Amino acid sequence: MNIIIKRLLLKGVFLKIRDGRLKKVMDDEAAEFTSSVKFDKNIFESDVKCNIAHTLMLKKEKIVDEKIADKILEALFKLMDEGYDALNFNHCDEDIHIAVENYVIKSTDAYIAGFMHTAKSRNDQVATDIRLSLRIKINEIQISILNFIKSLVELAIKHKHTIFVGYTHLQHGQPITFGHHLMAYAHSLKRDYERLKDSYKRVNLNPLGSGALATTTFPINRELTTKLLGFDSPLENSMDAVSSRDFIVETVSDLAILSSNLCKIAEELILWSSYEFGLIEIADEFSSTSSIMPQKKNPDVSELVRGKSSIITGELVTILMILKGIPYTYNRDLQEVNPHLWNVIENIEAILNVTSKMTLSIKFNKERAMELVYKNFATATDLADLMVKEKKIPFRIAHQIVGRIVNEVNSNNLNFNNIDSEFVDKIAIEITGDSLSLSNDLIKKALDPIENVKSRNVLGGPAPEMVELSAKNLQKFLEKEYKSKS
Amino acid sequence: MNIIIKRLLLKGVFLKIRDGRLKKVMDDEAAEFTSSVKFDKNIFESDVKCNIAHTLMLKKEKIVDEKIADKILEALFKLMDEGYDALNFNHCDEDIHIAVENYVIKSTDAYIAGFMHTAKSRNDQVATDIRLSLRIKINEIQISILNFIKSLVELAIKHKHTIFVGYTHLQHGQPITFGHHLMAYAHSLKRDYERLKDSYKRVNLNPLGSGALATTTFPINRELTTKLLGFDSPLENSMDAVSSRDFIVETVSDLAILSSNLCKIAEELILWSSYEFGLIEIADEFSSTSSIMPQKKNPDVSELVRGKSSIITGELVTILMILKGIPYTYNRDLQEVNPHLWNVIENIEAILNVTSKMTLSIKFNKERAMELVYKNFATATDLADLMVKEKKIPFRIAHQIVGRIVNEVNSNNLNFNNIDSEFVDKIAIEITGDSLSLSNDLIKKALDPIENVKSRNVLGGPAPEMVELSAKNLQKFLEKEYKSKS
Amino acid sequence: MNIIIKRLLLKGVFLKIRDGRLKKVMDDEAAEFTSSVKFDKNIFESDVKCNIAHTLMLKKEKIVDEKIADKILEALFKLMDEGYDALNFNHCDEDIHIAVENYVIKSTDAYIAGFMHTAKSRNDQVATDIRLSLRIKINEIQISILNFIKSLVELAIKHKHTIFVGYTHLQHGQPITFGHHLMAYAHSLKRDYERLKDSYKRVNLNPLGSGALATTTFPINRELTTKLLGFDSPLENSMDAVSSRDFIVETVSDLAILSSNLCKIAEELILWSSYEFGLIEIADEFSSTSSIMPQKKNPDVSELVRGKSSIITGELVTILMILKGIPYTYNRDLQEVNPHLWNVIENIEAILNVTSKMTLSIKFNKERAMELVYKNFATATDLADLMVKEKKIPFRIAHQIVGRIVNEVNSNNLNFNNIDSEFVDKIAIEITGDSLSLSNDLIKKALDPIENVKSRNVLGGPAPEMVELSAKNLQKFLEKEYKSKS
Amino acid sequence: MNIIIKRLLLKGVFLKIRDGRLKKVMDDEAAEFTSSVKFDKNIFESDVKCNIAHTLMLKKEKIVDEKIADKILEALFKLMDEGYDALNFNHCDEDIHIAVENYVIKSTDAYIAGFMHTAKSRNDQVATDIRLSLRIKINEIQISILNFIKSLVELAIKHKHTIFVGYTHLQHGQPITFGHHLMAYAHSLKRDYERLKDSYKRVNLNPLGSGALATTTFPINRELTTKLLGFDSPLENSMDAVSSRDFIVETVSDLAILSSNLCKIAEELILWSSYEFGLIEIADEFSSTSSIMPQKKNPDVSELVRGKSSIITGELVTILMILKGIPYTYNRDLQEVNPHLWNVIENIEAILNVTSKMTLSIKFNKERAMELVYKNFATATDLADLMVKEKKIPFRIAHQIVGRIVNEVNSNNLNFNNIDSEFVDKIAIEITGDSLSLSNDLIKKALDPIENVKSRNVLGGPAPEMVELSAKNLQKFLEKEYKSKS
Repeated sequence: MNIIIKRLLLKGVFLKIRDGRLKKVMDDEAAEFTSSVKFDKNIFESDVKCNIAHTLMLKKEKIVDEKIADKILEALFKLMDEGYDALNFNHCDEDIHIAVENYVIKSTDAYIAGFMHTAKSRNDQVATDIRLSLRIKINEIQISILNFIKSLVELAIKHKHTIFVGYTHLQHGQPITFGHHLMAYAHSLKRDYERLKDSYKRVNLNPLGSGALATTTFPINRELTTKLLGFDSPLENSMDAVSSRDFIVETVSDLAILSSNLCKIAEELILWSSYEFGLIEIADEFSSTSSIMPQKKNPDVSELVRGKSSIITGELVTILMILKGIPYTYNRDLQEVNPHLWNVIENIEAILNVTSKMTLSIKFNKERAMELVYKNFATATDLADLMVKEKKIPFRIAHQIVGRIVNEVNSNNLNFNNIDSEFVDKIAIEITGDSLSLSNDLIKKALDPIENVKSRNVLGGPAPEMVELSAKNLQKFLEKEYKSKS
Repeated sequence: MNIIIKRLLLKGVFLKIRDGRLKKVMDDEAAEFTSSVKFDKNIFESDVKCNIAHTLMLKKEKIVDEKIADKILEALFKLMDEGYDALNFNHCDEDIHIAVENYVIKSTDAYIAGFMHTAKSRNDQVATDIRLSLRIKINEIQISILNFIKSLVELAIKHKHTIFVGYTHLQHGQPITFGHHLMAYAHSLKRDYERLKDSYKRVNLNPLGSGALATTTFPINRELTTKLLGFDSPLENSMDAVSSRDFIVETVSDLAILSSNLCKIAEELILWSSYEFGLIEIADEFSSTSSIMPQKKNPDVSELVRGKSSIITGELVTILMILKGIPYTYNRDLQEVNPHLWNVIENIEAILNVTSKMTLSIKFNKERAMELVYKNFATATDLADLMVKEKKIPFRIAHQIVGRIVNEVNSNNLNFNNIDSEFVDKIAIEITGDSLSLSNDLIKKALDPIENVKSRNVLGGPAPEMVELSAKNLQKFLEKEYKSKS
Repeated sequence: MNIIIKRLLLKGVFLKIRDGRLKKVMDDEAAEFTSSVKFDKNIFESDVKCNIAHTLMLKKEKIVDEKIADKILEALFKLMDEGYDALNFNHCDEDIHIAVENYVIKSTDAYIAGFMHTAKSRNDQVATDIRLSLRIKINEIQISILNFIKSLVELAIKHKHTIFVGYTHLQHGQPITFGHHLMAYAHSLKRDYERLKDSYKRVNLNPLGSGALATTTFPINRELTTKLLGFDSPLENSMDAVSSRDFIVETVSDLAILSSNLCKIAEELILWSSYEFGLIEIADEFSSTSSIMPQKKNPDVSELVRGKSSIITGELVTILMILKGIPYTYNRDLQEVNPHLWNVIENIEAILNVTSKMTLSIKFNKERAMELVYKNFATATDLADLMVKEKKIPFRIAHQIVGRIVNEVNSNNLNFNNIDSEFVDKIAIEITGDSLSLSNDLIKKALDPIENVKSRNVLGGPAPEMVELSAKNLQKFLEKEYKSKS
Repeated sequence: MNIIIKRLLLKGVFLKIRDGRLKKVMDDEAAEFTSSVKFDKNIFESDVKCNIAHTLMLKKEKIVDEKIADKILEALFKLMDEGYDALNFNHCDEDIHIAVENYVIKSTDAYIAGFMHTAKSRNDQVATDIRLSLRIKINEIQISILNFIKSLVELAIKHKHTIFVGYTHLQHGQPITFGHHLMAYAHSLKRDYERLKDSYKRVNLNPLGSGALATTTFPINRELTTKLLGFDSPLENSMDAVSSRDFIVETVSDLAILSSNLCKIAEELILWSSYEFGLIEIADEFSSTSSIMPQKKNPDVSELVRGKSSIITGELVTILMILKGIPYTYNRDLQEVNPHLWNVIENIEAILNVTSKMTLSIKFNKERAMELVYKNFATATDLADLMVKEKKIPFRIAHQIVGRIVNEVNSNNLNFNNIDSEFVDKIAIEITGDSLSLSNDLIKKALDPIENVKSRNVLGGPAPEMVELSAKNLQKFLEKEYKSKS
C-alpha cells in the first residue's frame, strides 16, 4: 500500500490538516485573525531544533524507521542552514509547524515527511519552542544587564569622591557621593539579573512528549529529548505541560521590574538635565532639538525610556488577562500570549541598551553639584547627631533644635555659614533652658558636606571607601556570573 | 539675500533641524528607539491635510506670500494624490512631519518649503493629525457596530419563538427565547456605539495653532483651520492642546468595554459549541481541527476573540501609565502613546468583524435547546409565583415550598412531570401546616416553558411580542444613526 | 392557611433563603468570602428607596394587597429615618437585601414582609441600587470638579500678568503667563466634568423589573418605578439589565482620566517646590518634615496624590478582568465589581479635594519665575519669527540661524543680552552668505519675555487678554453647570 | 542640662516631629489622606522587633548608654506582650513608628525615649518592617500551598483509575484519568511554591542602618541587626535599600500567577457543576441558592474565586504604576504601595484556602464521566496511531483517514461502536487506493478509553501507574519542604 500512498502524495499535495474533518476552508478574515505568521519567526530555529531532537528520539527508539528518520533529519539540518527565508512562509492559513513540515515534504516527499508528526502534537511542540527561544533571550538580557552593571561600577569608582545631593521627596536630604548613587542603580540591576536566573529554572523544562494533552501510546523517550535540547528536566504532567504559561508571566514580571528600575534612571536623567538642576548634560547623540524652538536640547531618549517602560506592565496585564479563567488544557487563547512575550523582549532589549549607553554618555557638572550640596541644609542631620554624640541629649530634642535653627536661618535670609556656637545656643536655651556650648570647629565640621560624607562609612554608606568596597564586591559577582555564561 | 539662500539650499540639502543646535548626529540605536516611522503611516493623510489647511490659512491671512503658499499647496495636493509611498519614508532619523516637509522641498525647493513650518510646531501638528485619523477610525468602528446590531436584530426576530435556557451562574435559571438572548447582545452594542459618539465630541477638537505650547506671535486664524479641517471647535488653551491625550484614553476605554462585550459573546459561543452543551455549531469557516486528534472541531476563532479582547485592556494600562506623572507640556513620552492607540484600533476592528461574521454563522440546535429547557427546573420560579397569585401566600413561603419540592424530585430521581397537586400539597402541609389545593392544570401550565416565556411579556421581557417590540425600537435607532453617518 | 403561616412565622424565624434547596449551612470561611457586608453600606439608602418604589408599584398595580403594601412601606420609611445602623447588619451570611427584608420582618411580621420580594430578584435590585448610589456620587464629584475649576479660574485671573516659563521636555520652551498654565489645568478638568456628564446618561437607566434575568409573569409597571426612582428610562432587555456592568467600567475610566490629570498637577507642584526650581512653596498644612532630617519640608501630600492616582487604573484593570469572559446573565463574580467601584469613588474624592485645596494653598515666587524666564533662551523662537516677519526668509533658515546663535552664546558663556544686530549678522552671513540687518530694538523686543507673551494673543494663547477671555468663557460654563445641578 | 530637658519633657509633651520645622499643623483632610493608620497594623509586631534589634545594637556598640537602652528595651518588650491595642493608635496625624515611640515615651519618659531614634530613620525602618512582616506571610502562604498540594495528591491517587475526558478547546480531546487532571493542578501549585521560595531570598534582606538614605555617622553594626532580625544579609547600598520596592512587586507577581492558577481551577469547577457537564457536585457548604429561583444551586464560591483572582493583577498594576518614574530615594508615594501589598496578601490567603477546601469538597460523578468519554471520539488519535504502528503508514495519512471516518460517523448518526475493519477500509481505499485490513480486535482496543489511558504510560502520562509515580515524587517533595518549614 505504501507505494500507492507515495504515488498519490508525490503528486504534490502539501499538508492540509483540515481536510479530514472540516468541509470548508477558513474564512479569509478569520484565517488572518488566527494566523501566527507575524510572530512565529521568533520560534523558527527552536521549532527546527525541536523537530530534530524528536526525530532523533523516534529513530533511536525505533518508533520510526531509521532510513525515514535520516531523510527527515537531513531535510531539517538543511533548513537550519538555509534559515527562515527558505520556508517561503507567507500563507495566512498556516503556522510555523506546518511550514516546517511542508518544507520537509518538499525536500523529501509527503510519505517520508508524514512520519515527522508521530507521537507529537502542535500543543507540546509550541510550548517547547517558546521555552527554547525564551531561554536564549533571557541569556542575552542577562548579559546586557551584566554589561550595564560593569560600566556603572567603573563610573562609580571614578565618582567615589564626587559630592552630590542625596534627595528624598525631591528635596535635599543628605550629602552623598555620586558614586554611591550610581551604585544604587547597580544594585537594583543585580537583583534584576538574579530574578531572571531564578525564573530560568522554570523556563528550562521540557514539555515535549506531552502530545496534545495526554502524551502518547508510542514508547517515546522524554529523557532523551530533554538531554538533546538542553533542558534541565521534563515537565512531569502532560496536561500541565501543554497548558501552563506561568513561566511567561514570571519572566515578563521580571522584565516589568527591570523596566521599572530603568525608568527611574531615565527620570533622574531628565530631572538632572533640566536647566534648574543643571547637574548633567546628556550627550548630543541621545538628545533632540525642536522643530520650532531653535534653542532646545531635549532629553527625548530618556523620555522614551520612561514612556516605553510602561509597555511591559501593559503587556503583563494583557497576558494575565488572556490566561484568566481558561480551562485545561490547550486553548487557542494561549497562542495570543506569544506576540506579547516577544514584544516585551524586543522592547526591554531596546530600553536596556539605550539606557545603558545614554547613562554612560552623560557629562557630569561637579561644580553645580558642589554648589547645590551647600544649599538647603543637607547636612542638618549631622548637626543634630553632633548634639547627641557630644552632649548626650536625646536625638528627638536635637532634631527639634536643628529644625528651629533652619527656620531661623531661612527667615533671616542667612545660610549655614552663619551658624556658630552662639547661634546654636540661642535656640537651645529657648527650647531646653540650657546652652549646648558646642565648639565652632565641631559645628563647622558637622556642616561640611565633604567631612559629612567621609564619616558615613558604615556598611552600605556613601563614603568613598564604602563605595569602593561595594564596587569590588560587585566586580567579584560580575566575574563569577560572566564565567557561568561563557 | 533670498537669492543667496535659495542658491545655497537648492544644492540639495534637505531638512536637518538638528543642525543648528546639536553638534553630533543621533546614536543609531537611539535613532531607531525614538523613531515613529513604524506607526506614522496612520497619520500620513491627516498630516498632509493638516499642512494644507494651515498653508491655506497662512495665505489667507497674508502671513506667507500668496505665490509661495500656492506652490506649497500644489506640492501637498500632489502628495495626497501619490500617497504614502511617494514619501520614500524609511530613514530612521525622521518622522512623518519631516518626511512631508522633505517631499515639499523636493517638489518645490528648500526656500519655498522653508515657509511651511511658519507659526506651527510638530507639537500642535501631531496632536491635530492623531485627532483627524482617529475621527475616521471611530466612524468606521461605529458603522461596524451598527452592522452587527442590524444582523443581530434580524436573527433575533427569526428566533423570537425559539425556546432557550436563561442561565445565571451557568445554571439553568428561567426559560427565555433565543431571540431575547441575542437582543441582549444588541443592546450592549448599542451603548458601545453611543459611548463612541460621546467621545467623538472630545476627539473632534482642533489643537492646530497652539504651536509648541504657547501659540505664536503670527496673526493666525484658528477658526479658519478649525472649519477647514472639519473640527467642531478649537481647543481653548494652547498648553492643554499640545499635552492632553485624554481623548485617546477615553476612546481606548470605550473600546475596552466593547471588547469586553464581544468577549462575552465569544465565551458563550465556546460553551454552547461544546459537546456537553451542544446548542450550536460554529461554521467550518470559523473552526479549526487538530494536528494530532483527527476528530476535533475547535472554536479557535472564538478563543482568539476571547484572548485578543484582553489586548485592549493591556494597552489601556500602557497608555495610562505612560501619561502618569509627566508634567506639562509636550514630552516625548507622548509619542509612545500613538502606536498603542493604533494597535488598539487594528485589533478591535478585527475582533469586531470576526465576531460579527462568526456569530451570524452559527447553526442553532433547537431540539437540544428544547431538551435542556425541560431539564433542571428552569420554571420553578413560576410555580412559586403561581402560589402567590392564586393563594396569596407570601413569595418567601412559596419560594421555600418550591425549593423543597425540587429537593424531593431530585432525591427520588423524578422530574417536573411528576409534580401534581398532591405532590405540592404534601410539602406545603409539611412547611405551613396547610394544603394549597392548586389545580393540576395550573401547575402544568406554570411548569411549561413555552407558556412561561409567553407570559413574561412585560417591558424588557423574553416573550416573543416583547422581542419584536424591542427589535423594532432598535431598528428605528439604526435607521437614524445610519442616516447621520451618510 | 394564612393564619397558620403567620403563626408559624411569627415565632421569630427570620429569612433564610437557603433553607428550601440546600441542606447544609455555608462553610464559615466561604461565608465570609462571599459576604458583601463590608461594602453594602454604599447601597443601603438606595436599596431602601428601591424597595419603596417597587412596593408602591406593586400596590398601584394591585399585585400586592393595599394594606400589606402599606405596612411594608411604613417599615421601609421608618428604616430610611433610622438609617443604616438600625439594620444591626453584621452577620457574615447575608447581604443588604436580606438585611433590609429582615428589618421589615421585624417591623411587621414574616407574613407581610414575605410579599416584598414579589416580582423582584436580588439580581435586578442590586443593579438598581448601584446605579442609584453611583448617580449621587457622580454628582458630588462633578460639583467638586466645578469648584476646583472655579478656584483655578480666579487664581488664573490673578496671575494673568505673571510671567512663567513654559516647559516642553522639562526644558525651557517659551515664556507664558502663570495664569495661562493654570487655565490648562482648568480646561482639562472641564473635559473630566463633561465626560462624567455623558456617562451619567448610561448610569441613569432602570434595571428594576428585570427579575433574575427574564422579568416576571406578574403585570409589573416598569415605567412607574422608572419615574419614581428618577431614572431616565428603563433598560430595554432584562438579560442585559442584570448582567451589564459597562456603566461601571465607563465611570471608572472617566475617573482614571481625572486622576491622571490630577497626578500631572501633583507632579508639577513637587517639581516646582524643589530647591532647584524654587517656584512655589506649598503651605505647611500640606507638607511634612522628616523624622531624621530636621531641615526637611516635604511635599508629602502631593506625592500621595501622585501615588494614589494609580489606584484608579489598578481598579479599572481589576474590574475589566473580573468581567472578562463571564457568560450571561448574573454570575456572582459581578458582586466583586462593587467594592472596587466604591474604593475608586472614595479615593478619587479624597484625591480631588486634597489636590484642590493644596493647589490653592501655594505661595508663588514671582521673582524666581522672572529670573528663570530670562535664562536658557526661552524667547529664541521669537527671534526666528522676527527674521521671517521682517526679512521674509523661510522659517527653517531662521530656525537654523538662531540654533547656531544659541550655541555660540553657550560656548562663550554669554547670555541673550549680548545678542545684537552685529552678533546676529555674523552668524547669518556664515549660514546664508548675507546679513539680516535687524535693528537692535527689534531684536531686544523679540527677546524680551514680557513683550513676547503679550504678542502671543491669538485664540488659546498665553497673553493676559487671552487668559482673561478664556477665564470668562469658563465662568459662563460654570454658571450654567452649577445651575443645572441645583 | 539633661535634667532641665527631662523636667521639661516629662510634663507630658509627646512626640511632635513637625514642631521644629513647620509652623502650622496639617490640614485635617490632608492628615487623613497621608495617614497610614489603616494598614500599619500589618507591621506593628515587626516595628517593635525592629526597634528592639536596633536598640540592642546601639547598646552593644555603646552608641546609647546601657541603662537608657535597657529601659527602652523593657518598654518595647512590654509593648510586644500587650499587643497592638496597647498603642491606642487612632490619631490620624501619626504612623506606627511615631505611635511606638509615643508608647515608649509614656512607659519611660521623653528623655529616655528620645534616644530610640538615634542612627535610624523612618525610611530604613519601614522598609525593614515590611520585609519582616512579608516574610511571615510568604511562609504562611507557602504552607497553605503545600497543604493544598498534599490533599490534591491524595485525591489524585484515589482517582488514578477514574476515567475522564481530557479537553482541548473545551472539546473532547483524549481520555485521561481524573487523577491525572488533579495532578496537573498539583504541579502548577508546586511551581507557585518554588517561585515564592526564590522571591523570599530577595525579601529577606536587611535595610536597617540605611538611615534616611545615606546611613549615619554613628558607628552602627549592621551585621548585628541582620543577625538579630534573622535576615540573610544586609542590603549593600543605603539609597537602594530605602527606595527599592522590587521585592514587593516580585512577591505580588508570584501571587498573581498563583491566583491565575487558582482561577483556572475555579473555572473548571463551575463548568463541571453545570447541568450540561454534570461531572461534579460542589458541596452545599460552598454553594448558594437564589432569592427568586427556588431550584437553584449556584457555585457562588467558585465564581468569587474567579472574580477575586483579578484583584491581584489590579493591585500589581497599581503598585507598578505607583513606582513608575519616581526618583531616588524615598518618596511618600512609596507608602501607598503598602496597603496594596497587604490587600493582596489578605485576598490570596482567602482565595487559596477557600479554593482548597471547596475543591476537596466535590462529589465526583464517575458514571457521567464514563458516559462522556465514550462520546465524541476522544479516542480517535489512537485509531490513527494504530494505523502508523501496524501498517507503517505516515501519521499524516492516518490522521486524514480518521478525520474522514469521524465525518462519516457523524453524518450517519452512528457512533464508534459501528467502526470495524470494513468501515475503516472503505475510507482507507477511498483516500489511499488500498485497504488497511486492521483486525476488529485491534480497532476495538484502540477505541476503548480504558485501554487507551492505560497505554499512555510514558513519563508525564495519564496512565494509573504514571499518576502514582508522579504522586510519589510530589510526596517526597512535600516531605522535604515541610521539614524545611518546621
